[in-house]
Amino acid sequence: MADSLTHIDAKGNAQMVDVTAKAVTEREARAQACIRMQPETLAMIVNGEHKKGDVLAVARIAGIQAAKKCADLIPLCHPLMLTSIKVELTPDTENNAVVIEARCKLAGQTGVEMEALTAASVAALTIYDMCKAVDKGMVIGEVKLLEKLGGRSGHWQADA
Amino acid sequence: MADSLTHIDAKGNAQMVDVTAKAVTEREARAQACIRMQPETLAMIVNGEHKKGDVLAVARIAGIQAAKKCADLIPLCHPLMLTSIKVELTPDTENNAVVIEARCKLAGQTGVEMEALTAASVAALTIYDMCKAVDKGMVIGEVKLLEKLGGRSGHWQADA
Amino acid sequence: MADSLTHIDAKGNAQMVDVTAKAVTEREARAQACIRMQPETLAMIVNGEHKKGDVLAVARIAGIQAAKKCADLIPLCHPLMLTSIKVELTPDTENNAVVIEARCKLAGQTGVEMEALTAASVAALTIYDMCKAVDKGMVIGEVKLLEKLGGRSGHWQADA
Amino acid sequence: MADSLTHIDAKGNAQMVDVTAKAVTEREARAQACIRMQPETLAMIVNGEHKKGDVLAVARIAGIQAAKKCADLIPLCHPLMLTSIKVELTPDTENNAVVIEARCKLAGQTGVEMEALTAASVAALTIYDMCKAVDKGMVIGEVKLLEKLGGRSGHWQADA
Amino acid sequence: MADSLTHIDAKGNAQMVDVTAKAVTEREARAQACIRMQPETLAMIVNGEHKKGDVLAVARIAGIQAAKKCADLIPLCHPLMLTSIKVELTPDTENNAVVIEARCKLAGQTGVEMEALTAASVAALTIYDMCKAVDKGMVIGEVKLLEKLGGRSGHWQADA
Amino acid sequence: MADSLTHIDAKGNAQMVDVTAKAVTEREARAQACIRMQPETLAMIVNGEHKKGDVLAVARIAGIQAAKKCADLIPLCHPLMLTSIKVELTPDTENNAVVIEARCKLAGQTGVEMEALTAASVAALTIYDMCKAVDKGMVIGEVKLLEKLGGRSGHWQADA
Repeated sequence: MADSLTHIDAKGNAQMVDVTAKAVTEREARAQACIRMQPETLAMIVNGEHKKGDVLAVARIAGIQAAKKCADLIPLCHPLMLTSIKVELTPDTENNAVVIEARCKLAGQTGVEMEALTAASVAALTIYDMCKAVDKGMVIGEVKLLEKLGGRSGHWQADA
Repeated sequence: MADSLTHIDAKGNAQMVDVTAKAVTEREARAQACIRMQPETLAMIVNGEHKKGDVLAVARIAGIQAAKKCADLIPLCHPLMLTSIKVELTPDTENNAVVIEARCKLAGQTGVEMEALTAASVAALTIYDMCKAVDKGMVIGEVKLLEKLGGRSGHWQADA
Repeated sequence: MADSLTHIDAKGNAQMVDVTAKAVTEREARAQACIRMQPETLAMIVNGEHKKGDVLAVARIAGIQAAKKCADLIPLCHPLMLTSIKVELTPDTENNAVVIEARCKLAGQTGVEMEALTAASVAALTIYDMCKAVDKGMVIGEVKLLEKLGGRSGHWQADA
Repeated sequence: MADSLTHIDAKGNAQMVDVTAKAVTEREARAQACIRMQPETLAMIVNGEHKKGDVLAVARIAGIQAAKKCADLIPLCHPLMLTSIKVELTPDTENNAVVIEARCKLAGQTGVEMEALTAASVAALTIYDMCKAVDKGMVIGEVKLLEKLGGRSGHWQADA
Repeated sequence: MADSLTHIDAKGNAQMVDVTAKAVTEREARAQACIRMQPETLAMIVNGEHKKGDVLAVARIAGIQAAKKCADLIPLCHPLMLTSIKVELTPDTENNAVVIEARCKLAGQTGVEMEALTAASVAALTIYDMCKAVDKGMVIGEVKLLEKLGGRSGHWQADA
Repeated sequence: MADSLTHIDAKGNAQMVDVTAKAVTEREARAQACIRMQPETLAMIVNGEHKKGDVLAVARIAGIQAAKKCADLIPLCHPLMLTSIKVELTPDTENNAVVIEARCKLAGQTGVEMEALTAASVAALTIYDMCKAVDKGMVIGEVKLLEKLGGRSGHWQADA
């Protein structure tokens, strides 16, 4: 474990980490989010999916767009040129949930964890929005980094 | 429970709900998010807070700014003119977490749940960003609506 | 026909029209765009639609989001709070085209023609983007206002 | 002609094309749009141009700014760092139209067709906005790619 | 003089001022900025102005667009629906400067000083950008509120 | 001194400078802004700073975020991927002012002066916003480039 927060300078002020001198390497991150709901709510989403799939299609697009907005949302994130964004949404009828996995890639000087986490979070929020008229008690959880590749810190994986 | 998703029209296509004819009333929503971390990570945040408080100050600003961007992030949300946004972040040393509560208000034709949920989520993501160099395993969870006032559906409160 | 451009002041400089004193009335506008393509391209979209409909679903969302960004795109447009945005996309196999109709509404001090035209245009551009790998020669055309209701100038309809 | 849409994955879901492994090469695209209007409307624009040129100047800036917003407007576009954007607007008194040509360039991993098409479209929409008080029947058309250079697919030109 | 900062709550945390209960009244603000430069630089702008006026035309548009982005730039500003934005740029050959005056209006619950100040500042920055190849030593100054009308605090005017 | 404005082409029209062929080099710029106020206003900020520092913390974040938005604010700026943004705010009790210095860096094809100037300006505007309830007469001034490194034009420094 590092012993200090990289975004706080010696005077205790927030700053963007200077990555000017870091090597350009291929980087990738996978993150997840999960939204739990009433079984009837999930059934509406899933039935919709069999026909037109709009709730999940809209959430997927929202997640992809949010990854691109990450530096605008998270104050100390660097602007990045993502070369790949993928958002997958899987209904989990056993747990009355939709599980979201977002994966981002680029060749750059800094990692893309925040982009993946932002994509997963906003996809989950979009599902909430589209279903809130029938189920205000939905809960978003387990928003976390699953895996990270590339960069000086190398490969990192969440505990199973 | 309503029996259909309001954002899906009769053909199964996503649409923005038409609120043109709805009354302008005062509306309010409170939402929360929570981010769990290593005790050492929380200690760094809290010690920072005693001096300059930058992690929590930055997350608070990010949450406030995100509430204003809600309609840009969530595809079927209406553009709104929020009249109040509050984001409070409370370190919870017992559970090694920071608890975030966001509250939004306006006089308008549609509710502000998504604005409050977005503010809480982005504040949590910002904490992740600022602490990820020391703790990649942080988990955001319990992102949920706490309370909603105003509008036709009246007062709603999450189960305790 | 009015005899001067409202966005140019007496000195010839561009300006935003001052609508402070205009009445708040319900306003609505309908606009269309059309994108012509190879029959094989349209077949791919339509076949996709029967299964998951993603090209049209993505274009619909892009159009809705673009309507909200109108004041950011068109320099002299007023910021507005749209209360309804609808984007419909209809494959026209006879003319090898997709026809897009966008409709926007609000209660406000200025019309929503630009919002509807922007929504239709961006939906068409999104179809181009998603199909350009198979058909670079697609042409977007007939982007025009169909109808306008509300405001001092009253009802306006395009010639058939 | 390729035999599938690159933005739809094997399951039929929309995705951003992964360009991480593509070479960085110099790329360029030229696109056009055209807006037809009443002769009196064009005369107002042209007369203005002789003095201060504001309608065309504003439309040019709007087109340039829109090229930079392309990835925010078109859901599956990659964020790009354009190194050149040019927008030229030419009054065509014979056809009572303004013809817009936009040209974008960068050294990158993906083409800039959408940026050029977006610039041309938004410049046309801006002309509509500034002249709509005198001529609501203007029609935007022939929005199309003219030429594309660089990248694996090489040189492409629209049929004359 | 009030005795505390309205954007800091009792705990010392930044917050957006709650204006939900404030009356909707007509509000207006005028602000200025000034950019001083070499006489040769001003001559280039002025000569350009006599022909096509592009430097001042671009700066005017940038200022108008910036007023609309104010709530996105200034963290604790409320989102507003401006009903009028005017930006005037006057070359001042005696002082080798361009003087910018921005005026914003709306009927709303909060003042528009920040919108006017932001418009004036960004117009000045745009002039810097367009002339920096010939004159890096330009200085922007005297960015200040000139006048404010409407709202509870009434009429306010800067000392001459 | 160069003898023409680089953003104006031979026909007098505004354009973005084409930097496609320029070398990628490390570039850096430092800019400043200054906001003068009543001594009581500065005392409120400074006292706040000793406890929680929110005015300066919020202004710092606003400045950092604004640097990333530069190409969206300044019409002819290129989109850039900044690798470092630093904003420092120093209370100057002798002159009743807060002095802001912003520093931006990247490895790219064009300089980052506008990003640094924008960061400094928006940080100053944010201080104005947070203190305007107690002091409307604050004046922002001396917004200027301090130093510029890298690129063909090499090292440039403002006169002391």
